[in-house]
Amino acid sequence: MDVENIKSINDLNEYMEELEIIKPVFYDAGTVYMLDQTLLPFKEKYISLNSIDEIAGAIKGMKTRGAGAIAASAAYGLLQKADQGSSYKELQRSGEILKATRPTASTLCWVIDKILSNIKEIDDCSISEKTEQIVVEIIRRKIQDEIKIAQTGADLLRDGETVLTHCHAGAIAGIGYGGVTLGIFREVVNRSKDIHVYATETRPYLQGARITTWELKKTGIPATLITDNMSGYFMQKGEIDRVIVGADRVTANGDVANKVGTYLISLAAHDKGIPVYVGVSRAGIDLNMESGDEIPIEMRDPEEVTNLNGRRIATPGIKAEYPAFDITPHKYISGFITSCGLIEKPFKENIKKFMEVSK
Amino acid sequence: MDVENIKSINDLNEYMEELEIIKPVFYDAGTVYMLDQTLLPFKEKYISLNSIDEIAGAIKGMKTRGAGAIAASAAYGLLQKADQGSSYKELQRSGEILKATRPTASTLCWVIDKILSNIKEIDDCSISEKTEQIVVEIIRRKIQDEIKIAQTGADLLRDGETVLTHCHAGAIAGIGYGGVTLGIFREVVNRSKDIHVYATETRPYLQGARITTWELKKTGIPATLITDNMSGYFMQKGEIDRVIVGADRVTANGDVANKVGTYLISLAAHDKGIPVYVGVSRAGIDLNMESGDEIPIEMRDPEEVTNLNGRRIATPGIKAEYPAFDITPHKYISGFITSCGLIEKPFKENIKKFMEVSK
Repeated sequence: MDVENIKSINDLNEYMEELEIIKPVFYDAGTVYMLDQTLLPFKEKYISLNSIDEIAGAIKGMKTRGAGAIAASAAYGLLQKADQGSSYKELQRSGEILKATRPTASTLCWVIDKILSNIKEIDDCSISEKTEQIVVEIIRRKIQDEIKIAQTGADLLRDGETVLTHCHAGAIAGIGYGGVTLGIFREVVNRSKDIHVYATETRPYLQGARITTWELKKTGIPATLITDNMSGYFMQKGEIDRVIVGADRVTANGDVANKVGTYLISLAAHDKGIPVYVGVSRAGIDLNMESGDEIPIEMRDPEEVTNLNGRRIATPGIKAEYPAFDITPHKYISGFITSCGLIEKPFKENIKKFMEVSK
Repeated sequence: MDVENIKSINDLNEYMEELEIIKPVFYDAGTVYMLDQTLLPFKEKYISLNSIDEIAGAIKGMKTRGAGAIAASAAYGLLQKADQGSSYKELQRSGEILKATRPTASTLCWVIDKILSNIKEIDDCSISEKTEQIVVEIIRRKIQDEIKIAQTGADLLRDGETVLTHCHAGAIAGIGYGGVTLGIFREVVNRSKDIHVYATETRPYLQGARITTWELKKTGIPATLITDNMSGYFMQKGEIDRVIVGADRVTANGDVANKVGTYLISLAAHDKGIPVYVGVSRAGIDLNMESGDEIPIEMRDPEEVTNLNGRRIATPGIKAEYPAFDITPHKYISGFITSCGLIEKPFKENIKKFMEVSK
């Protein structure tokens, strides 16, 4: 099916099947199905959700994670609510409930507002139809963006390259084609080029060991898991040709906030002359911030450092700290992989241009 | 008790009690007692060993680890064997069994050869007495070295400093006063200066989370545990004043092989202008190697990366790699903390001098 011909949820689901999308969430015959990411990599199970409260509960309970997957879950939730015959007012209330699950998730808020603004003036009897139309449009566009990011990234990679990635910015953090990393690797393989991916385990939450490697395995991309302190060793040995990571936030000057440890990786890459590329969607760029110095770093529960899978692994009574992100200064970044091509230096100028072009 | 007056095992044990040494192993009334390091940090238990085979089995089973602790275990093993009325020939055979537990451990071999060469010409009836004399001399000298390293390091540190360390090169990797790191922190506290230590957990074996932090807690030194990918974050934030680590091996030019991840830490320190010091005993310096390029890096069982405490934590079927060490180039090292003072640049010249002086 051609992507332009996607008009309904049925079309969308059919298209996603054809593309072998690893669906973090989908909607079918009145039910929202969400991949329970907390069970990965040992169990691949979709939970059925039939109300806004169930969906909000699943997002809060970390059943799904990643900006794209959370926003898609909310979009499908509103569509389900509309299909259940709800009024605009009820949908508005549902939007509030969904937004409250992650108050700082900008894509989530943007998607909900976009849907609501499109159905505000619509007759109650047409709300369901119009909601489907706008939700399909949002998801379709998101898939197209992921494909364009994949193509931009794949243009960079030569046959036989080994790429290092950190944390997880792959399929099920986005809408499922491949987020800002896995899609690139898929596209490279589609072009019949060889690739090998080194994935860091990403303590304390082990996104690399549990999710990135699960996706790589599932899509048949050769991969090696290492612990977070080993990236430098493999770069020293000349076994890494390129670093590709995602970003939590990119500031106007090109500084990157990403999962803690990205800074160390960028330093080793710099030391050994290895290029570092950052895959990023439009929503990940924040022109309101001049530089990384302005980004507040979230400090999470230190118990995640001292415990693993609910079991204590560290000295009883020892203090721990868990900064979720660090800042990689733009001087250590080679370029940004986006849905409108590559952003190269000078970043300040070119990031601004990208934001205008991609509106 | 003055260290010069230690003449017997009883004196030695008394001295170690006074100094509050965290004994990785000791000998008392015919029995070798070894701290079972595999139970740390949850249980502090000494196992009783009454034969060479039991001691060799405990070393092979990783009940103890660290060059100093292994060598001391072998020394006490030979003394026990001598006290059981064995001949020189039997002791020679015991030495072979003990050497075979860790064929590449140079300190272990050196200690065994030193003991055997001292009793070779001795009457059978005097072997026990002479062995005690030489074992006490070896351990006493080792304690003195650790104290000197502690003093050299403590001279560097200012009041209120925060030090980052990686892996474990502390008390129970040595003879118990503090190896090449903890002793420094103890000495700083003894001088009534404040100190705070950040310890990396050191995946995959978690030496930091299990042992370094246990020793810090036990000696009352304020400490914070972080995962291996967080060192850069805390250096960026200006929260680290100095890095102090141990070394598996130092080459003639000052390159350092140490636990994998040390290289990344040194890069972040370099980026932020933070000095990096390496504590090292004479046995850790290898003048036969010109540079780190010549050091073979041990690749260990990848199951340690995919599993933790016997439980799978990573995607089933995923390939993993586990290099135990990496090389930190000498340009990222500020100095070496030794039993004969600080070795500063130019390293090649000054390391050579140290090896001559410390003979």
